[in-house]
Amino acid sequence: MYAFSRAVNSMHSEDIKQLMKQASGKNLISFAGGMPNNDLFPVDQIDDIYKSLPEDIKKLCFQYGPTSGYPPLIKSLESYLKEKGLPVGENRILITTGSLQAIAIITQEFVNEGDIILTENPSFVGALSVFETAGAEIHSIPIDKDGIDIKALKSKIASLDRKPKFLYVTPNYHNPAGIIYTPERKKQLLEVLSGTGIILLEDDAYSDLYFNEDEKHLTRSMKSFGVENVEIIYTGSFSKILGPGFRLGFMLSSEEIFEKAETVKQSMDACTSNFMQILANDFLAQHKLEPYLTFLRKEYLERKNLLQKHLKTHMPKEITWNEPKGGFYIWLKLPPHIKSTDIFKETVSKGVVFVTGRTFDPASKKDDRLRLSFSNMPKEHIEKGVIILSETIKRALQSSKISLS
Amino acid sequence: MYAFSRAVNSMHSEDIKQLMKQASGKNLISFAGGMPNNDLFPVDQIDDIYKSLPEDIKKLCFQYGPTSGYPPLIKSLESYLKEKGLPVGENRILITTGSLQAIAIITQEFVNEGDIILTENPSFVGALSVFETAGAEIHSIPIDKDGIDIKALKSKIASLDRKPKFLYVTPNYHNPAGIIYTPERKKQLLEVLSGTGIILLEDDAYSDLYFNEDEKHLTRSMKSFGVENVEIIYTGSFSKILGPGFRLGFMLSSEEIFEKAETVKQSMDACTSNFMQILANDFLAQHKLEPYLTFLRKEYLERKNLLQKHLKTHMPKEITWNEPKGGFYIWLKLPPHIKSTDIFKETVSKGVVFVTGRTFDPASKKDDRLRLSFSNMPKEHIEKGVIILSETIKRALQSSKISLS
Repeated sequence: MYAFSRAVNSMHSEDIKQLMKQASGKNLISFAGGMPNNDLFPVDQIDDIYKSLPEDIKKLCFQYGPTSGYPPLIKSLESYLKEKGLPVGENRILITTGSLQAIAIITQEFVNEGDIILTENPSFVGALSVFETAGAEIHSIPIDKDGIDIKALKSKIASLDRKPKFLYVTPNYHNPAGIIYTPERKKQLLEVLSGTGIILLEDDAYSDLYFNEDEKHLTRSMKSFGVENVEIIYTGSFSKILGPGFRLGFMLSSEEIFEKAETVKQSMDACTSNFMQILANDFLAQHKLEPYLTFLRKEYLERKNLLQKHLKTHMPKEITWNEPKGGFYIWLKLPPHIKSTDIFKETVSKGVVFVTGRTFDPASKKDDRLRLSFSNMPKEHIEKGVIILSETIKRALQSSKISLS
Repeated sequence: MYAFSRAVNSMHSEDIKQLMKQASGKNLISFAGGMPNNDLFPVDQIDDIYKSLPEDIKKLCFQYGPTSGYPPLIKSLESYLKEKGLPVGENRILITTGSLQAIAIITQEFVNEGDIILTENPSFVGALSVFETAGAEIHSIPIDKDGIDIKALKSKIASLDRKPKFLYVTPNYHNPAGIIYTPERKKQLLEVLSGTGIILLEDDAYSDLYFNEDEKHLTRSMKSFGVENVEIIYTGSFSKILGPGFRLGFMLSSEEIFEKAETVKQSMDACTSNFMQILANDFLAQHKLEPYLTFLRKEYLERKNLLQKHLKTHMPKEITWNEPKGGFYIWLKLPPHIKSTDIFKETVSKGVVFVTGRTFDPASKKDDRLRLSFSNMPKEHIEKGVIILSETIKRALQSSKISLS
């Protein structure tokens, strides 16, 4: 029930936590967890790497490492990021204990209590919990199928009496919205930020998980656009391309931001596990990542296609969504008078869970969406889960029609 | 040069960092690093554990875990701590990414900028850097060979206009002072804190590393004394009994403190590596720890004895120290007119490094001590290192006599 606990942790509402706990004994069909599939991890590849580690490197696994990261892994990441077009030369890499730690470090570096942070709405709950814990004032900007709402972003910035410390976005295969920003939208976003002094925090945990090779170019990160006048901190993660259990992430930033970040990291956990860094480094250095990603993309595409097919078959026409082109999530839109939390309360008693819309709203209110994750789902459960969910929504639609009539 | 970087990181002074960097190419004799010995890690034991992990557990290694920790490891730690007499039943364990993270979590939970934290003087630099980063006002209390100076502690508390948030101590085999608190001193400390509302943060990273089985009882932790009216948070670490590369620590606290700490941890790195927790759990559950500790104690005792012997032979009589009964460190006392930083500048050019006294003073001033670590030292280097250090100190004594005369 580990996956579970995490899902529970990232929910805001106490009553939902209770429901999840009560249900946790049952054989749940879970669309909730935003984690990779247990059966898809590269266990054999890591076995091979572990077995062939030379004795002196094995000893190093057990020892402290430098705060900035295991130097060979930094080198491997330089190649990996260069390949993605990122400006590695003029920037520095800091290895972090998961990319959430990178977000926590940046928040500690820049944000004092009461400072403003801009986020998308919806936004990744892990980041929201970091910002909330730091006592930040979160202002959120809606997104549509092509990315952040540029008009809303401009007027938000204009309306504020203080400069926000940064704007946090996840442009590629958004969690929870499943969308990818169009290149045009990315450019517009940079234009809005240009010269404002608002840092862009670009969280890129999912960009390797596109479904179609032809669309790979769409994942190009804003930090690689070469725009001046916008300070961009780029974060990445091994959680989706190797395994969250490694707790490995990284950030790419200017030298100046890197140096302070290193000091903050030193006071958070001294350094990230050498053991995990050494295994991950060989995974990259021995070129095991690319074939593994090819395999992963096929597997997740298959699950997405199944979920998409069953949703089309069973969902009432009032329910809409954008078909994702990568990542883990489908973000269903309910009619405005139906709350995803109410749907959840029904489906959980029938053994189906997901994450409610308001979980991803910094204000914990907007609740007309629900996040279905297809990543950690046995394929044979998808249809049954969709049927139970669809029937619950249909009943809610009917009773709302009755009460409205 | 990993060990090195950490030593560099924990030094305050820029000029010393420069010197260390310049020297890092040479074959240094390093008494500096406060880490276990590379050649003593239980590499074979962990190999065996890894190889015999069942497939489903291996998959779990790659996945997220609960924020509070991998449940079987929590169970194993319960037995381990019960064995030490700790009140496991009425308290909760939180697994952390190294025990430094536990200190960081507690600091974030209790300390706002400008709040007072009490520490020993000298004190563990890692903790000092956490407290400084949080913007705390650190007040330090001297220790002697039996523990914290009770009179000084009392008058410090009486002199403050605000209640300190906590007192941070490392009573067993102190880093850097090498001492162990007497049971009497532990009791007196608790009496002073009783009823004040000042939390005791008891850092117990070294208690398993006693040299003499007969003195094991002296390591009994204050949290196990059953004193009421003092809130005690106990922290422990796998860094000294398995390997710092695992980045595994834990804290034992009341339910109330645990719950907030879990939320803070969630916003720091979501959870600690399942991979590392699963390996560490089998190390405990398969009873591999006790035989390994028996081996370690013998090895470190041998190194301590060598260092003690050579210091006795070569050091001028003006230099004093307490022979440690466990842990990693000998804490040399220089005559007051000789600065450990000046000695360092000389020895580093001759290929010998240690950590200067003022590194461990929260005010970065008191500099009449130097820390020699014997833990990560090839035995055959000890004498040569001591001779170079002794001769440097002798020259400093002579020239100070000349300049005084």
